Amino acid sequence: MRDVAAGVDIGGTNTAVGLVTGEGRCLLSRTMRTDRHEKVDDFVRDLAGEIQQIVREAPESIRLVGIGIGAPNGNYYQGTIEHAPNLIWKGIIPFAQMVRRHFDVPVALTNDANAAAIGEGLFGAARRFQHYIVITLGTGVGSGIVVNGEVLYGHDGFAGEIGHTIVDPEGRECGCGRRGCLETYASAGGIKRTVFELLAESREASILRGMSYEAMTAQQIAEAAKQGDAIALKAFDLTGEILGMKLADAVAHTSPEAIILFGGLAQAGELIFAPTRRHMEANMLNIFKHKVKLLPSGLAHENVAILGAAALIWKDLQKNISTGVPA
Amino acid sequence: MRDVAAGVDIGGTNTAVGLVTGEGRCLLSRTMRTDRHEKVDDFVRDLAGEIQQIVREAPESIRLVGIGIGAPNGNYYQGTIEHAPNLIWKGIIPFAQMVRRHFDVPVALTNDANAAAIGEGLFGAARRFQHYIVITLGTGVGSGIVVNGEVLYGHDGFAGEIGHTIVDPEGRECGCGRRGCLETYASAGGIKRTVFELLAESREASILRGMSYEAMTAQQIAEAAKQGDAIALKAFDLTGEILGMKLADAVAHTSPEAIILFGGLAQAGELIFAPTRRHMEANMLNIFKHKVKLLPSGLAHENVAILGAAALIWKDLQKNISTGVPA
Repeated sequence: MRDVAAGVDIGGTNTAVGLVTGEGRCLLSRTMRTDRHEKVDDFVRDLAGEIQQIVREAPESIRLVGIGIGAPNGNYYQGTIEHAPNLIWKGIIPFAQMVRRHFDVPVALTNDANAAAIGEGLFGAARRFQHYIVITLGTGVGSGIVVNGEVLYGHDGFAGEIGHTIVDPEGRECGCGRRGCLETYASAGGIKRTVFELLAESREASILRGMSYEAMTAQQIAEAAKQGDAIALKAFDLTGEILGMKLADAVAHTSPEAIILFGGLAQAGELIFAPTRRHMEANMLNIFKHKVKLLPSGLAHENVAILGAAALIWKDLQKNISTGVPA
Repeated sequence: MRDVAAGVDIGGTNTAVGLVTGEGRCLLSRTMRTDRHEKVDDFVRDLAGEIQQIVREAPESIRLVGIGIGAPNGNYYQGTIEHAPNLIWKGIIPFAQMVRRHFDVPVALTNDANAAAIGEGLFGAARRFQHYIVITLGTGVGSGIVVNGEVLYGHDGFAGEIGHTIVDPEGRECGCGRRGCLETYASAGGIKRTVFELLAESREASILRGMSYEAMTAQQIAEAAKQGDAIALKAFDLTGEILGMKLADAVAHTSPEAIILFGGLAQAGELIFAPTRRHMEANMLNIFKHKVKLLPSGLAHENVAILGAAALIWKDLQKNISTGVPA
């Protein structure tokens, strides 16, 4: 009988569910739609059904030891999802508690970037670090800050919003309602906005001139850069300049051993790592220079969110303490 | 017999020494020059003599339980002072260990802002908080970040350098060798630089036009502002704008319950608190808005650095663990 934790990753469109061993192996997974249930109760009921289903389908004899959930605007202390802009359920949802009603195991919930940080610490690139930061460069920019081996939650459970630190108070409009957040520059959408600025400013030829704003993806920008497209290369450099500067600020706050870049934009590899590293060092206070490693994720990309969510349970079990939501 | 901890505050010019009770009362204190000993060994010998002297002079029967030291570029993990720009001793100095040779009690050392943070937590404005930040607005801008009741030291002992986060990468020259650090705007020297910019830009009458750069102090700027001087008022507003924006960034990192402003510039009261609070809220991500208290120090100003340094020992004794440097 093998112990497994279920990992649940709730996204705006899809929710992924998987079973993860204590060594970080995902035995099996499946996805369901997030946005097809008007009532969150109905969604939780179907989600519970999916979890029960994959437990039955497991290729070997298993025992479910807990359910870890990564969710946008997830609050670890409360087990709630609070005012998530990209979910259809509004307000404050006691999500972990609702899932807990269907199971006789601990249920813990946190936001997706914190789940990724725990996953990197248990199974990935941060296994040997006690102080590190995971930055997710996807649709948005998320962050999970780890101090002394523990995620930094702050007084309310919401610490670690480096994506919403300010680059330029009169800068680009952000989905959060303010202007100039790091997320508006260093996300998949951010680099596209930078490309569009460059296309407007310069007369340089570029294969990106043939694409509409709606059609262009960060992956296409990376492809163009790999083919030597000057606009695309410049966009990566500017993105790394801004990201590097804000990572130097983050280092001045918590002095980590490593920063791990994760998510779609990080897939571009050295295209984004090289300028980010260069500008991070250039902006670093002397006492921090050449100390902080900038690393790619050490988790298998396709199951990364599931691994992170499940790691929440494995981490709690390691600590031998009870998880978030009472029985 | 009353237990006391010695608090030692090492500044560039003067070093203050005092005896502090577990309730945060400073029984007596004295100062000595920091910059008159070419060799640090000689300084440590005389410092030890001063500590032994005030222990003898104590007004009641006391027992020395430890020596806490606040020092520029102090490293708590190592007990070292490392490359402090405003001290005459260069390199890495094993200061706590050197003091320890003269005494049979624990010796702990940290930087001055971290000492202030511990002092506020034990004896001052942060007594009821587990998550808070202390910002020292003096000659420089220091910070001590507290998470779950403990100072955040990071992997190398140097976390909490919010004064050296970047406001403008092409901004003012900073003593650290870079440009545009928060310290170049929100310190006593920073507000003076802002006044000089405003005097150059505008034609507004101001009593500050009669003072040289060398002669002008932050206190004089505060006096002028209290008398309604438009340039001085504008300088406080601009200082609060930049400080508020960077404090909102700090909140996005560690989500504290309170931020405590401390030091010379904080003495200006609402002149600096009001614009800082306003701009901090304006730059805050929604989930953090109207949650974070901006408070003045709760420590008696004249002994504040001694109280902070001594608190380092009281804090360690509370935790019932041994302090930094082994016997």
